[in-house]
Amino acid sequence: MTAEEGASAPPDDRAKERDLAKTRPKTAPKPEGERIVRIALDAMGGDYAPAAIVEGAIQAARDFADVRITLVGIEDVVKEEMARHGASPETISIAHAEEVIAMDEQPAAAMRRKKNSSIHVGIKMVRDGEADAFISAGNTGAVMAVATVLLRTIDLIDRPAIAATMPSQRGYTVLLDAGANVVCKPENLFQFGIMGSIFAEHSLDKPRPTVGLLSIGEEDVKGNPTTKEAFDLFSQSSLNFIGNIEAKLFYRGIVDVVVCDGFTGNIALKISESVAEMITVFLKQMFSASLSSKIAYFLMKSHLADFKRKVDHQEVGGAPLLGVNGPVFISHGSSSPKSIKSAIIRARKFVQEDVIEHIRENLAENKDILAHKEAKEEGIWTQLTKKIGFGQTGQESKDE
Amino acid sequence: MTAEEGASAPPDDRAKERDLAKTRPKTAPKPEGERIVRIALDAMGGDYAPAAIVEGAIQAARDFADVRITLVGIEDVVKEEMARHGASPETISIAHAEEVIAMDEQPAAAMRRKKNSSIHVGIKMVRDGEADAFISAGNTGAVMAVATVLLRTIDLIDRPAIAATMPSQRGYTVLLDAGANVVCKPENLFQFGIMGSIFAEHSLDKPRPTVGLLSIGEEDVKGNPTTKEAFDLFSQSSLNFIGNIEAKLFYRGIVDVVVCDGFTGNIALKISESVAEMITVFLKQMFSASLSSKIAYFLMKSHLADFKRKVDHQEVGGAPLLGVNGPVFISHGSSSPKSIKSAIIRARKFVQEDVIEHIRENLAENKDILAHKEAKEEGIWTQLTKKIGFGQTGQESKDE
Repeated sequence: MTAEEGASAPPDDRAKERDLAKTRPKTAPKPEGERIVRIALDAMGGDYAPAAIVEGAIQAARDFADVRITLVGIEDVVKEEMARHGASPETISIAHAEEVIAMDEQPAAAMRRKKNSSIHVGIKMVRDGEADAFISAGNTGAVMAVATVLLRTIDLIDRPAIAATMPSQRGYTVLLDAGANVVCKPENLFQFGIMGSIFAEHSLDKPRPTVGLLSIGEEDVKGNPTTKEAFDLFSQSSLNFIGNIEAKLFYRGIVDVVVCDGFTGNIALKISESVAEMITVFLKQMFSASLSSKIAYFLMKSHLADFKRKVDHQEVGGAPLLGVNGPVFISHGSSSPKSIKSAIIRARKFVQEDVIEHIRENLAENKDILAHKEAKEEGIWTQLTKKIGFGQTGQESKDE
Repeated sequence: MTAEEGASAPPDDRAKERDLAKTRPKTAPKPEGERIVRIALDAMGGDYAPAAIVEGAIQAARDFADVRITLVGIEDVVKEEMARHGASPETISIAHAEEVIAMDEQPAAAMRRKKNSSIHVGIKMVRDGEADAFISAGNTGAVMAVATVLLRTIDLIDRPAIAATMPSQRGYTVLLDAGANVVCKPENLFQFGIMGSIFAEHSLDKPRPTVGLLSIGEEDVKGNPTTKEAFDLFSQSSLNFIGNIEAKLFYRGIVDVVVCDGFTGNIALKISESVAEMITVFLKQMFSASLSSKIAYFLMKSHLADFKRKVDHQEVGGAPLLGVNGPVFISHGSSSPKSIKSAIIRARKFVQEDVIEHIRENLAENKDILAHKEAKEEGIWTQLTKKIGFGQTGQESKDE
């Protein structure tokens, strides 16, 4: 099952990856028309950092000639880990960051106190044009807060959202917000829909993606007050909006982009992981229950691997934080080297397809609807930036 | 996977059922200390009504000597269906109801217009002491509305909640509200917790059940404004409150009762069904992929049946609508005869254990905390009862 941050490598990417691996010598020329992508990768973030991160980076650098990775973290630690893998410094460099934000640190406080964290240093590289994208499997709240403050939100976007790519019976479905915003206004949901649609179109190659609102009934009168009002905004827009989508249909993959607030989205995503975990436990019990089931397991082994691949969040690598002025990917805290490599592949495509520029264009198209949003109330992000002493840096939140 | 209404037969009930089936002649004396339970069953509600409902009723009546079932619906239709099964009228009677509320009818309007529906007639039987419980697989919204108006809510309860019993890695977990209330106040969540705890203790035999709040982080500062305030109410109570529970742990079964609003609960439950459906599809593909996997399927057959039983909502029959003055069970719209039989078993235990009386006692224990709730705002239920012309019947909503 996909994870909080589950953005998976779409099939064509995987096919491309296999082809490249087969045919390419070490110094393969980069494919025509594809630009070199410079990725800043948080070496210190994640439950298995730095080992899993460095290993994932090495695998990606080996397989993709058009990727340049900078590992961001405590230099000595990263160097030692690289040496352990005999990694060459050709395609992987190191950017020193002397502080580390722990997985369980309170994001706002950590952001304020540790301005030299690997998260800060990596996101600054994106802001300053030294990297094309930042990836972290570390403290999700801290990545969101630092990215929002340092990169600021895209014009016409009030709050960024995490876009998780989930497996389904037919390919992939984008779910957003997967946890960035606990409370949302209707216009936030509408903005998420625009961003999710563009992401699905350009990053998952879905032409004119369908967009639905996660709700408890299909009729437009169903839902809570926020989803009902968002329904009206979507109906007026240029998006391919198909109305409410009930959760019971989610994994059939009949809608490309599913929009909801971050509280609901996070619970939908995490409870899906929990169901998959339970079923996996039951399957394991089943396959070890008797001699005949053990033989069956042996007969099924290759198919089971395929099954696991379909529901495995490692296939999926990182979820973009959509809505900030720069590509930022958040990976699962328990990321393996495989997950990190997948995240790098996703970020590479995101950059090469220039998803953020496409989002800006689509926002302009829907400007009239967006202009109707009420901008009176002080948003959470404004409060957050105030709380963390953002004003002291001399910059301003766009909410203010 | 369990369904919206998923209340499953707990293991001891199933064991009891098997024992009874083995040892009891047709006219078995009822077990010592167990009272006869009279159940009004909506023969017209559900996707496969009346056939599946009547068949389930016949099976339950045959296997349980202490159950008396009244099928509520259009008499001729029900009689014909019973005749088809050669059912004897000894333990099953019929109560005529000339109207039927369709599955997709707007609940408030249907409630107002069809006062002789099977739902009205069945719930009136409970109100008037002619039945001990009512079960329907019909229009969930209509059952909730009619039950709330005719039975009214229990003193100190503002709104009823649907309590779904979900499978887990260790037995069963109660999730409420599973869809009755789209928007909830903190005191609603607290009331749900009390009712869920008593239900788990007496209906699922869990001594001093643990109660958790479904949220996006374990710390008390995590969640949305409503769950944070509810956290404080729970902390002061006599319940065995263990704090927030993250969705990713839900199916480990480490908490007996999980509380959330009906929007979140409905989505959590339905998306779980959707994951299970997807995994089932993948498993079927896997088992039919090759000759060896087909052989494996053959070897696994008995274990697969056991696996299916663990995640099947048919094992699970109906979910009580907790908070009204009478036992009302809501079953899945797609209920099979097996589901209906399970619901009857659940309702029987609910009545024999006098769950509602225990809820009243516990509410009295937590009266001081409940008294602090703000009763100023006009609740949805008040609005609903007004809208459906409830005032015209001469009764009053308790909210008013």
